[in-house]
Amino acid sequence: MATLGLVEYQAASPEVRAVYDDIMATRKTDWINNFWKALARDPALLRRTWQSVKEVMSPGSLNALTKEMIYLAVSASNQCPYCIASHTVAARKAGMTDAMFTELMAVVGMANETNRLASGFQVEIDDRFKTPAQ
Amino acid sequence: MATLGLVEYQAASPEVRAVYDDIMATRKTDWINNFWKALARDPALLRRTWQSVKEVMSPGSLNALTKEMIYLAVSASNQCPYCIASHTVAARKAGMTDAMFTELMAVVGMANETNRLASGFQVEIDDRFKTPAQ
Amino acid sequence: MATLGLVEYQAASPEVRAVYDDIMATRKTDWINNFWKALARDPALLRRTWQSVKEVMSPGSLNALTKEMIYLAVSASNQCPYCIASHTVAARKAGMTDAMFTELMAVVGMANETNRLASGFQVEIDDRFKTPAQ
Amino acid sequence: MATLGLVEYQAASPEVRAVYDDIMATRKTDWINNFWKALARDPALLRRTWQSVKEVMSPGSLNALTKEMIYLAVSASNQCPYCIASHTVAARKAGMTDAMFTELMAVVGMANETNRLASGFQVEIDDRFKTPAQ
Amino acid sequence: MATLGLVEYQAASPEVRAVYDDIMATRKTDWINNFWKALARDPALLRRTWQSVKEVMSPGSLNALTKEMIYLAVSASNQCPYCIASHTVAARKAGMTDAMFTELMAVVGMANETNRLASGFQVEIDDRFKTPAQ
Amino acid sequence: MATLGLVEYQAASPEVRAVYDDIMATRKTDWINNFWKALARDPALLRRTWQSVKEVMSPGSLNALTKEMIYLAVSASNQCPYCIASHTVAARKAGMTDAMFTELMAVVGMANETNRLASGFQVEIDDRFKTPAQ
Repeated sequence: MATLGLVEYQAASPEVRAVYDDIMATRKTDWINNFWKALARDPALLRRTWQSVKEVMSPGSLNALTKEMIYLAVSASNQCPYCIASHTVAARKAGMTDAMFTELMAVVGMANETNRLASGFQVEIDDRFKTPAQ
Repeated sequence: MATLGLVEYQAASPEVRAVYDDIMATRKTDWINNFWKALARDPALLRRTWQSVKEVMSPGSLNALTKEMIYLAVSASNQCPYCIASHTVAARKAGMTDAMFTELMAVVGMANETNRLASGFQVEIDDRFKTPAQ
Repeated sequence: MATLGLVEYQAASPEVRAVYDDIMATRKTDWINNFWKALARDPALLRRTWQSVKEVMSPGSLNALTKEMIYLAVSASNQCPYCIASHTVAARKAGMTDAMFTELMAVVGMANETNRLASGFQVEIDDRFKTPAQ
Repeated sequence: MATLGLVEYQAASPEVRAVYDDIMATRKTDWINNFWKALARDPALLRRTWQSVKEVMSPGSLNALTKEMIYLAVSASNQCPYCIASHTVAARKAGMTDAMFTELMAVVGMANETNRLASGFQVEIDDRFKTPAQ
Repeated sequence: MATLGLVEYQAASPEVRAVYDDIMATRKTDWINNFWKALARDPALLRRTWQSVKEVMSPGSLNALTKEMIYLAVSASNQCPYCIASHTVAARKAGMTDAMFTELMAVVGMANETNRLASGFQVEIDDRFKTPAQ
Repeated sequence: MATLGLVEYQAASPEVRAVYDDIMATRKTDWINNFWKALARDPALLRRTWQSVKEVMSPGSLNALTKEMIYLAVSASNQCPYCIASHTVAARKAGMTDAMFTELMAVVGMANETNRLASGFQVEIDDRFKTPAQ
């Protein structure tokens, strides 16, 4: 009903409920966070985004913890308050200790600093950094 | 002499040479990449930046490979060409396989997408994501 | 009086009032939002910014709705809370439906994802994308 | 073979070729641009990204031209050279005139300016911009 | 003639030439850089942008050098290659020494680092930083 | 004790207290703002960040006020609420008047606008902006 509202489980269509059920089953939780309830205003957007996140975040060559920390690193770099809050919790559930968190932030901070130094000094890419196949 | 030039080893002051030597010793290489040669125009900036990078990137609770991948994730998110080129090479040296690289990029891409969805939908932070101690 | 305060209509100078009057007349509203009241601390900044916004946002080859949606797309991409809130309302007034909003956000999200994939994979620009006249 | 190389059609696996074929059929072209050839190093990433782009960019409440212009607006705001080049061409194919392009850029520029003014002046969100249902 | 081309002085309309003349007179130079030649595809965009830049960059409470360095700081932070190149030259003309440049970059780098630390650690704004009038 | 908590002076280790003492002595204040209390969860991060900030922000070729305004310009451009709030106060203490603040923001806004115009129009760097020594 609400234009910018959140779609609660009980008010959701079967299509949306199916996604919610899969989110809870995959994450082994019994609740849905606001992000998904907001996307549910557009069931196709909800389904597509969840499918992509599920696929991307499932363990592969990188384990779940590493993936969550990378997600958090990007969110902190982009300064997205919702994403930082939610992925800090997610990363902790995946095993991130406080020491890992502060080291992660130290790398994020340093990368953001040196990114600007490289750009500001107009540093040209060294030949050795240009891989032959590119 | 050149205003925006690179400081080569043979033209460097003892102070700059000492940093260059430490970079090569720490990284077990025999060359200095352009980033440091550019910063060397300001020896204090060179020394401070190198000390911080050295300290931040040394293995701790996170290993060297994870740290390099986080650095690359931030650089890709910030779209810094020099930093992407140099840290892709650095991450590969630290053990990043091609499968790890593409998974890393998939997470970076997805985080950048959902960061904007969370902001654009004006999603409020769930109470469960607000940690008590904050 | 207040250093970071808002300049209300009744306390405004004739120069500022003239801009406020034009904003209300152009937008067919009877109030001024905080953004303009903040800029009014510097009447020249207020006048210049309003003149530019008025000129840029008036219908031309692109209609008012399309322009408002582009404004919102950029604000969501930049993650500016004030701008997202104000331009969501403005776009709705200009005719943006809920379906248009969610499609807009889907494009914004996808563009932010593929922007980083293109950068992270260091993709070179295809010759066919380099227009002759550039 | 090449670590950071592009996967050409003739060297592609059946899975990758199927995506390439769909891209060409959907876009009514006979070539694949570098972006997809780069993602093809990870067939799952290629398939998922293409499926999402195809779904998001197909006409719905917003037509193809509007979607392409929004994509370009975000890419210009993010300053991604590859994405600007490719989506400028795509938007032109979809009907963007030169007048539409310059108006689009004018809006992108103005939004980027006022986003920072709103943040820098620490402007609080007006009550009227807070929708009841949020 | 060219879609994405640059408008040279000899091919420019009287309206565009008037702006070019004012740029050269204001800057005391005898040439026009590519940025303005590109904007000239849309004479109204050219005129409006130049008028704003001229007004904003003229000395006031801040002198020309300080303004140029702030422009460069933002451009380096945004990692815009064209803007960094052009405003480095402009700042030097306004009196920026090499020592000022490297200190400027050091501040830009440090601000980019601590911005992310503040966001990533979810630091709440101290009461003393909330000014009464806001 | 708290995972995301702030380290207060009385609960701090001698190592952290030493940094706090140096911050208060350097800034001639009797309190520590939340940013440092958050970093103190990782004493090495606290010490390193403070040492860098202290070194970078001390007057050199640029005076303290100019440095604070550059810091604020970057923070506004990055849209970091904490950093904008804290550095607005810091810049005012260093002597920034209201007129200087609004001129600063005008430059930040304009730079953010023209950065995107330069990128969106794919403007090539003029030869005269490529310095010989680079």
